[in-house]
Amino acid sequence: MDAAEFRRRGREMVDYVADYLENIEQRPVYPDLEPGYLRSLIPSEAPLEPESYEDVMKDVERVIMPGITHWHSPYFFAYFPAASSYPAMLADMLCGAIGCIGFSWAASPACTELETVMLDWLGKMLQLPECFIAGTDGHGGGVIQGTASEATLISLLAAQRYKSLKEQHSYLCRPNRLQHCGPTTCSLWVFSLMLPVLLPKAHSSVERAALIGGVMMRKVPTDKTYAVGGHMLKQMVEEDKAAGFIPFYFCATLGTTPSCAFDHTTELGPICNDENMWMHIDAAYAGSAFICPEFRPLLNGIEFADSFNFNPHKWLLVNFDCSAMWVKKRTDIIGAFKMEPLYLKHENQESALTTVLFASSWVLQHWQIPLGRRFRSLKLWFVFRMYGLKGLQAHIRKQVALAKEFESLVRADKRFEICAEVIMGLVCFRLKGSNELNQNLLKKITKSQEIHLVPCQLSGRFVLRFAICARTTESRHIQQAWRHITQLTFELLQEPSH
Amino acid sequence: MDAAEFRRRGREMVDYVADYLENIEQRPVYPDLEPGYLRSLIPSEAPLEPESYEDVMKDVERVIMPGITHWHSPYFFAYFPAASSYPAMLADMLCGAIGCIGFSWAASPACTELETVMLDWLGKMLQLPECFIAGTDGHGGGVIQGTASEATLISLLAAQRYKSLKEQHSYLCRPNRLQHCGPTTCSLWVFSLMLPVLLPKAHSSVERAALIGGVMMRKVPTDKTYAVGGHMLKQMVEEDKAAGFIPFYFCATLGTTPSCAFDHTTELGPICNDENMWMHIDAAYAGSAFICPEFRPLLNGIEFADSFNFNPHKWLLVNFDCSAMWVKKRTDIIGAFKMEPLYLKHENQESALTTVLFASSWVLQHWQIPLGRRFRSLKLWFVFRMYGLKGLQAHIRKQVALAKEFESLVRADKRFEICAEVIMGLVCFRLKGSNELNQNLLKKITKSQEIHLVPCQLSGRFVLRFAICARTTESRHIQQAWRHITQLTFELLQEPSH
Repeated sequence: MDAAEFRRRGREMVDYVADYLENIEQRPVYPDLEPGYLRSLIPSEAPLEPESYEDVMKDVERVIMPGITHWHSPYFFAYFPAASSYPAMLADMLCGAIGCIGFSWAASPACTELETVMLDWLGKMLQLPECFIAGTDGHGGGVIQGTASEATLISLLAAQRYKSLKEQHSYLCRPNRLQHCGPTTCSLWVFSLMLPVLLPKAHSSVERAALIGGVMMRKVPTDKTYAVGGHMLKQMVEEDKAAGFIPFYFCATLGTTPSCAFDHTTELGPICNDENMWMHIDAAYAGSAFICPEFRPLLNGIEFADSFNFNPHKWLLVNFDCSAMWVKKRTDIIGAFKMEPLYLKHENQESALTTVLFASSWVLQHWQIPLGRRFRSLKLWFVFRMYGLKGLQAHIRKQVALAKEFESLVRADKRFEICAEVIMGLVCFRLKGSNELNQNLLKKITKSQEIHLVPCQLSGRFVLRFAICARTTESRHIQQAWRHITQLTFELLQEPSH
Repeated sequence: MDAAEFRRRGREMVDYVADYLENIEQRPVYPDLEPGYLRSLIPSEAPLEPESYEDVMKDVERVIMPGITHWHSPYFFAYFPAASSYPAMLADMLCGAIGCIGFSWAASPACTELETVMLDWLGKMLQLPECFIAGTDGHGGGVIQGTASEATLISLLAAQRYKSLKEQHSYLCRPNRLQHCGPTTCSLWVFSLMLPVLLPKAHSSVERAALIGGVMMRKVPTDKTYAVGGHMLKQMVEEDKAAGFIPFYFCATLGTTPSCAFDHTTELGPICNDENMWMHIDAAYAGSAFICPEFRPLLNGIEFADSFNFNPHKWLLVNFDCSAMWVKKRTDIIGAFKMEPLYLKHENQESALTTVLFASSWVLQHWQIPLGRRFRSLKLWFVFRMYGLKGLQAHIRKQVALAKEFESLVRADKRFEICAEVIMGLVCFRLKGSNELNQNLLKKITKSQEIHLVPCQLSGRFVLRFAICARTTESRHIQQAWRHITQLTFELLQEPSH
């Protein structure tokens, strides 16, 4: 395909994309397929000779679209939103064309520098404390990670290193691998212990990070709002210290995945600081809302954190992947990853100015697991400018209002109950009655393919999560979804078994 | 921006991209900037009100383009290629529009299933042994990772777990953190020891993985072709075992970053198998060439490997990021990452067929660090079909021929020497003489902004790497680059200091 054909096919693809998104609600939101459906629809080997573009695009409709869960359908209410907007898609096209691999400043200066400045813009939109803003001479700053899991893992690895430097008398071991170690042997060692807020409701990414980081993990119990308070953490830290462990890391969650609960960071932060524990705050979904002054108080306590992360690719209209992470001290995080073979060095790295700005602390590859990186800050730049702060705030507020609208509908129906406070765009609800009843309702909903939800578990109860996801979801979709749910409920309750 | 404006702006962007790539060689390949150039060119905060698309695009030329290292310029010969093709860019547009987060089969069945089949296609193109192909009932299979660094890390983590299951009597610790541990205490423990082929010439990703995995690492010495042979590994393994360590992981490199050297995997493989060590083969750059029968023998020995990885995003015309990884046993790798909270479970996961095909072994989030993943297999599908195997082979062969052409030019000039055998698209060369002389030559080249190279170190010597990178590089660009280098050499040798 040459440039001339790309011009033609590119226009067709732009129209295909626009058509897809304009008409998405006519497609069943969730596919009706058996696993393994695709393999029989296409050849078992790549073709030897080139095929035509028309044939490929025909197969997109024949093979791919029937197997898509349409995340951008206004009837998609599962998981959390995956952000999507036209400006972000345009920026991604530009990113693909530039196609630089920004592992160092020299590999494409604009890629490193725009990212640094965009994370400053975003940090200011969230009113992060000054210490997280890079500016021209700050010690903190932000970086784009792929996902919140990577941000959590990186903060954990940085904490391990940080703690090992501070606790010169202790050894950081892998206690979870030491199950054969008798008590006598163990007493020779001081183990590191990770204490993340991995309540049963927090995100599995923390658990994964602990697994990869190879550290022990304790789950801190939550209060009746499914949030962690200071006294719970304090008690656990004391217990563990008494048992000879060193707690060194705590991950607070603002907006948990199951119910969007908010840990009490103003209580938790001082404890972490006193105990010399690294505090990471994960606000993967809810973080975007902090650009609205009315939601910003939920972020109070951030001043105690060592690192903070949220995903603009969830709720800030920036297509996946774009997870924003800030640290108070860049040097804390770089040491855990720094490698500089000759082929990645460049002349400017040696200059005084670069040394300050980019040589060590702004070589963004030292901030992440992968070596290479795409020019993802272009998406932020396009979205921030084309929506403006006010446009982004309007998007958040609209989706929160839609959640409140759905909440009202549920509350008005005595057969249902709301299971957690509705603060953002997520409503946790269930039919009053058994878990089985609710499981059956969800099965009916899934089978209908008209709307798509996923469940969660709160205090042992099977709960339905209704998340406002698509940018194009309007009141009429909420009303239609509720009519559909009540219709299926009516049918369910008619069945002899209930 | 609504769909109508997106149609208009999308077309404009398609033209901008085509114009950019058609005229890229008129831009200086490497920017002439001081670090920190960008911050003063844009506001220090995001705008409150939306700005116009025209203003954003004007700033792309004003702010971004002057800071770009143009990886797709035919005069870019640095690092290794970053693949780029029009079909891949079209597929990426579609990927952005679908915008699914494919962390489970249910989150978009097509996303998981196409990836599995595309990795089978690609595995067959490389003639991987049958055990790496998933098919409908195989135990192995492939997955797309972001980068080779992630693939290396994941294979290391899998090896750690695998080894800890096999060696029930040993403890896997973090010996690099045990510097305070006296010999008496140490003798109570059996340490795990990683032995990757991290010759000074291998990729820094292995070193990074060891750092993150928290294991000790030894570098295996190389022969005069900068490759690792069997006897070197064997000797080191024996030494370490005698010292009470357990070697458990070895990473062989096919096509090292500095000089594109090939480890002798047919010798190394049997040693790893005998010693019960996990063998990972990293062919990040060179792997693409194995689709050509004449290069396939370099992959011999793959049958001994537990995992294998290469980057189609380097040399197979698939835009970044797309790193292909295969394992012999899916179950080895999944255990290291598996987490299944309720909100990620789905009904089909329970069915017999899914259990076999997708429930555990094909939930691709268990294969990687991040939870979320984009629909990257679309890029592979578009590229494989629109080029055909023959088209892809032609691309590889053309770039190898261009490297040979450059090699001939260097060899014909007695002032220069070739520093490593030219097997793929990389030529390592230098001026006969001091390192300083070659450093000065490279400085002149960089400053000229006409072509872009990076250096490496081979046997203590400062060497220039000339890698054929852009899809559009032709013989005339090679000839022009060499004229330019010899002109700068002439000037350099005229200077009084030489």
